[in-house]
Amino acid sequence: MIGAGAVGGYYGARLAQSGLDVRFLLRSDYEIVRTRGLEIRSIDGDFRLEPVPRRFCGSVADMPTCDLVLVALKTTENHRFDELIRPLLHENTAILTLQNGLGNEDALAKLFGRQRVLGGMAFVCINRISPGIVHHMDHGFIRLGEFFGPSDSPRARQIAALFTAAKVPCEALASLMYGRWAKLIWNIPFNGLCALLDLPTDRLIATEEGTAVIRQIMDEVMAAAASDGVQLDAKLPQTNIDLTRTMGAYMPSMQLDRRAGRPMEVEAIFGRPLERAMAHNLRVPHMQMLHLALSLLNSRQR
Amino acid sequence: MIGAGAVGGYYGARLAQSGLDVRFLLRSDYEIVRTRGLEIRSIDGDFRLEPVPRRFCGSVADMPTCDLVLVALKTTENHRFDELIRPLLHENTAILTLQNGLGNEDALAKLFGRQRVLGGMAFVCINRISPGIVHHMDHGFIRLGEFFGPSDSPRARQIAALFTAAKVPCEALASLMYGRWAKLIWNIPFNGLCALLDLPTDRLIATEEGTAVIRQIMDEVMAAAASDGVQLDAKLPQTNIDLTRTMGAYMPSMQLDRRAGRPMEVEAIFGRPLERAMAHNLRVPHMQMLHLALSLLNSRQR
Repeated sequence: MIGAGAVGGYYGARLAQSGLDVRFLLRSDYEIVRTRGLEIRSIDGDFRLEPVPRRFCGSVADMPTCDLVLVALKTTENHRFDELIRPLLHENTAILTLQNGLGNEDALAKLFGRQRVLGGMAFVCINRISPGIVHHMDHGFIRLGEFFGPSDSPRARQIAALFTAAKVPCEALASLMYGRWAKLIWNIPFNGLCALLDLPTDRLIATEEGTAVIRQIMDEVMAAAASDGVQLDAKLPQTNIDLTRTMGAYMPSMQLDRRAGRPMEVEAIFGRPLERAMAHNLRVPHMQMLHLALSLLNSRQR
Repeated sequence: MIGAGAVGGYYGARLAQSGLDVRFLLRSDYEIVRTRGLEIRSIDGDFRLEPVPRRFCGSVADMPTCDLVLVALKTTENHRFDELIRPLLHENTAILTLQNGLGNEDALAKLFGRQRVLGGMAFVCINRISPGIVHHMDHGFIRLGEFFGPSDSPRARQIAALFTAAKVPCEALASLMYGRWAKLIWNIPFNGLCALLDLPTDRLIATEEGTAVIRQIMDEVMAAAASDGVQLDAKLPQTNIDLTRTMGAYMPSMQLDRRAGRPMEVEAIFGRPLERAMAHNLRVPHMQMLHLALSLLNSRQR
């Protein structure tokens, strides 16, 4: 597990708890976790992953080659793929990225060969509340698929079965790209506006005007997906808005990043989708303005 | 002079200094100004307006009827027009609003009759730096015109002459609405994005992407103006961007309002122009998103 923030910590801990030999590569939390272990406070029951020897690593040099590399780095760290992942690969190592947005599989495929790469979307309300402590508030299921070739390959189904056996409901998708764009329908409007305005989701859809703007952004994402070859279900915008109404005053990851002064994942969630839309001469003014605004905020934080 | 913030304080002081009998209605600065007077620190030379009896008033009940009411309230206070202005009117009193955005003349005309109303745009870099002290950094000219009938009427030219004699270059416009929309070409993109991102003007046009988005917003304002019957000069977007490049790291009033926790003038600068565009079924996605975003920020400040 490369990266053990909220997503890496939670899913890695579940897989380890199910009996698999999971090694974690940590950075900022390494000193604390190697002495205290990893603590998961979950609505499904709290548990702790003890710091047995070699489980928690501070450097990739301390890790063996493995059958599956799980990537849970923030996408703002993708320039480190080569240094962090190449040492772990044997001939048949698969690489599954659980990162946000578009372009992560492409970057991995370019470096390590497309036949190794899978992508997955985590649907989970989760937070790293302090070093070594992850709070799992709700949900948790994963949808994954192959980057190249039939998305729900035997390998994809095998990995899905590992997660499911580890109390993480997981399914192999018929189309990874459908899954990626379907998640952007929510991420682009809500991560974008919540981060830009530092307001939780419920405030954006509290008025007709707000809901109308959210719908227009979603329509742009639908069109961008179509230009990228993915015809999303026309009901997705409405079901996503309905779902958001059940979530209360939720703060998406990008808003939390902004609050904490951490870089926001602007390129994966906005930049890559925008590039694809613009390559097809699509007019996506909302996406463009969100990309500009968030890029400027990111550059201000440095 | 109704309202004696930066604009009201500066222009009122100039008119009083030229020998006219100007009465100021103040609120927050009243106690300080009635003892110390009004201090103008100007690139054209500092001066002080002494607190002679009846010049500075804390209530409209202390003011006489007058020939010209100048309105320099923030537009977020427009609901107070009736209480603040009606007591000052005699049969031939004219009302000139120097406020930002659209809709101010309309509101005044509805209350007091369209034949009384003129509008003016102040082109000035100015700041109220503390109670009773206004810093005049650059420029200062005014363009004004009648709300109803020929814009550059004898009355409009007469008022322009009063300003010019008071060291405020001023001209009567052939079309007030042209002037209003021409000013919005700058105000909508730069006040909007600077306030939204809390970044000065130069950061917005530092990149090709930023300049492109500014241009797109300006194109929407051009189209909105056209739908409102005003055909703006096609060179205006470029000349406004060129002008902004000479301004350095300038922070527009709306950004300063946000920083100070004061309400931003969202409805006058964004709401009214947006309404007019939407009444003509124009697609103005940038304006719409700016209006939503700034409205939400305004509501968060309360």
